[in-house]
Amino acid sequence: MSESIVFAQLDGGVASVTINQPSTRNALSLEVMEDLIDTLTEVAERTDVRAVILATAGHVFSSGHDLTEIRGADHETQQTTFDACARLMQLIQTIPQPVIAQVQGVATAAGCQLVATCDLAVAAESARFATPGVKIGLFCSTPMVALSRAVPAKQAMRMLLTGDFVSAEDALKYGLVSDVVADADLESATLELARKVASASSATVAVGKAAFYEQRELPVADAYARMSQVMADNAVAADAQEGIDAFLTKRQPQWQHRR
Amino acid sequence: MSESIVFAQLDGGVASVTINQPSTRNALSLEVMEDLIDTLTEVAERTDVRAVILATAGHVFSSGHDLTEIRGADHETQQTTFDACARLMQLIQTIPQPVIAQVQGVATAAGCQLVATCDLAVAAESARFATPGVKIGLFCSTPMVALSRAVPAKQAMRMLLTGDFVSAEDALKYGLVSDVVADADLESATLELARKVASASSATVAVGKAAFYEQRELPVADAYARMSQVMADNAVAADAQEGIDAFLTKRQPQWQHRR
Amino acid sequence: MSESIVFAQLDGGVASVTINQPSTRNALSLEVMEDLIDTLTEVAERTDVRAVILATAGHVFSSGHDLTEIRGADHETQQTTFDACARLMQLIQTIPQPVIAQVQGVATAAGCQLVATCDLAVAAESARFATPGVKIGLFCSTPMVALSRAVPAKQAMRMLLTGDFVSAEDALKYGLVSDVVADADLESATLELARKVASASSATVAVGKAAFYEQRELPVADAYARMSQVMADNAVAADAQEGIDAFLTKRQPQWQHRR
Repeated sequence: MSESIVFAQLDGGVASVTINQPSTRNALSLEVMEDLIDTLTEVAERTDVRAVILATAGHVFSSGHDLTEIRGADHETQQTTFDACARLMQLIQTIPQPVIAQVQGVATAAGCQLVATCDLAVAAESARFATPGVKIGLFCSTPMVALSRAVPAKQAMRMLLTGDFVSAEDALKYGLVSDVVADADLESATLELARKVASASSATVAVGKAAFYEQRELPVADAYARMSQVMADNAVAADAQEGIDAFLTKRQPQWQHRR
Repeated sequence: MSESIVFAQLDGGVASVTINQPSTRNALSLEVMEDLIDTLTEVAERTDVRAVILATAGHVFSSGHDLTEIRGADHETQQTTFDACARLMQLIQTIPQPVIAQVQGVATAAGCQLVATCDLAVAAESARFATPGVKIGLFCSTPMVALSRAVPAKQAMRMLLTGDFVSAEDALKYGLVSDVVADADLESATLELARKVASASSATVAVGKAAFYEQRELPVADAYARMSQVMADNAVAADAQEGIDAFLTKRQPQWQHRR
Repeated sequence: MSESIVFAQLDGGVASVTINQPSTRNALSLEVMEDLIDTLTEVAERTDVRAVILATAGHVFSSGHDLTEIRGADHETQQTTFDACARLMQLIQTIPQPVIAQVQGVATAAGCQLVATCDLAVAAESARFATPGVKIGLFCSTPMVALSRAVPAKQAMRMLLTGDFVSAEDALKYGLVSDVVADADLESATLELARKVASASSATVAVGKAAFYEQRELPVADAYARMSQVMADNAVAADAQEGIDAFLTKRQPQWQHRR
């Protein structure tokens, strides 16, 4: 795996994927995005990874796209950049393992989009979030696909039209992150959350994560028709029968984790 | 009506429908769900009922599906269970009367789904909510249809992936319930809210409740086209003309309640 | 422009459009709605207007439709009224400039819908919001198109089924408004927000506003496919290249504002 992205297998089925570009404030250059896509594609295949922490190195979570790549580029190059970004964001929601953003410093533009896209996000209480593209003439139109599906419309519009920063506290209030913790506890709290997620049957979690994003886009009646099938299939699978039996007989379940 | 479900006509056009299975923590067994469907189907026809309180007996609101039914069952039986659950949840949003959940203790899995599904929900301040299926290998895939349409995505995912309990205060903050009251006031506050809803024209409320769920799934332009019709139809109906005249002449309206 | 609507060009590319009917509590009569549509249609063409403040005269923001027009009217007249209302609300989201509601006093029924519809909304801390049609037999079915796309379902339903007022603080919490300020600061704070929005490239803002409402109704994959195009087109436009160059060379951008 590339040096721009560092993969590390932690204990308890947790892995971390770290964007390691502090000198560019972890800008999402085309190369970084392609490397991140490659890493996550490999992670998707690893059955020993049951939860992924998406972290970055240094004081800034991510400043978004690399503006030096966008300045002066032709339309085809721009399209390549934003297509890669769109593939990356959708991949995060498509891999079977939950992805948890670990957010320090500032997360702006496509960096904020990364946070909005991850299944869960733990923010340090000093972290701040913005979609400031409007200030440089480049509206955060791809980031808003994720942002507007995470937070209420007025709050998304306020971020998009002003570029103002939102505090971690407000990000939690509006749904942009799932957890806020003291700065000193960021790594330990994220790891604890990841371990909790990884303690479940990975087969069950894979079914549930895919089902979440599938049903969310369906009308209610179609969503129920589809989820009843998903739930019946899940219920006869080995890990559900094991889990239910363990629960009813008050013992710890032994997962097969087969997805 | 079956003894698993107790129907009671209260004053002011309010009825209560109570799941009366405290010994199983009001588990939603297939029988309980079918009885609840039957009761609500009868309630839908009653013009003397203008608001419904959905309550349960004992210290636990509902623990969700009956796991003893799911353990060892074949696929067809599982499908029957989850189909009944899906029918029940959609029926709650389809009957003409608003349904208000009255929530004490814990509401978990399909019990939490019941809360998310009701038109309104009043929670005791000590009440807690969870979708803990992931812990027993059976992801809360049908509950999340209702949950993900009630609360922001990150909060829904956090509940689904961890199984952690959410407090009544957080449930209110994120939209899972509409009201939180002191434990001692739960019944009186729910009744007061139900009476307020029942004081309106039941014809008007039936139109509005159906319209809410219909327009919610349409694109904005289609929603406006449809709701303009609904509103014009409503405006020429007897109860609207009576209500407007009463308002303009500063008197109490006399509803016909004809739906 | 009609005297029922007052247009004023303010400094910094900001214009105000004021409903000037304090004697009817700024009721949205058919005439007022048609005049407002005409004014906003003209504003849409003005390249010297980059942000619009939607204000009203007097102590009440707006009491909604004019009930004296609805009392006794035939179906065709009702349909004309609600169709005009639907056109007005969709026009607010269609004109290229962001529209910011400036809300004092109470905003009820279609007045509350106006607030829910505007791109941003600044409320005085004493402002209150309600959709009380249910109390007069006329459910707020067109207002709920906007309301249910701004706030969580349970909170929308509570407002619609009870007609109860919601405080500015709760309106902010649930996403009905984007800002709450001290009563004495309402005009200055709204103007400051509008100036900030108007300081951006109007070409960029027009792209972003249209894209926001377009992508919001698409499935995620379609939204990303479309927004990647929008973003690539935006990135090669003059104001983006100017803005990026200004940012990278630490100078103020000079916008062409060409849309």
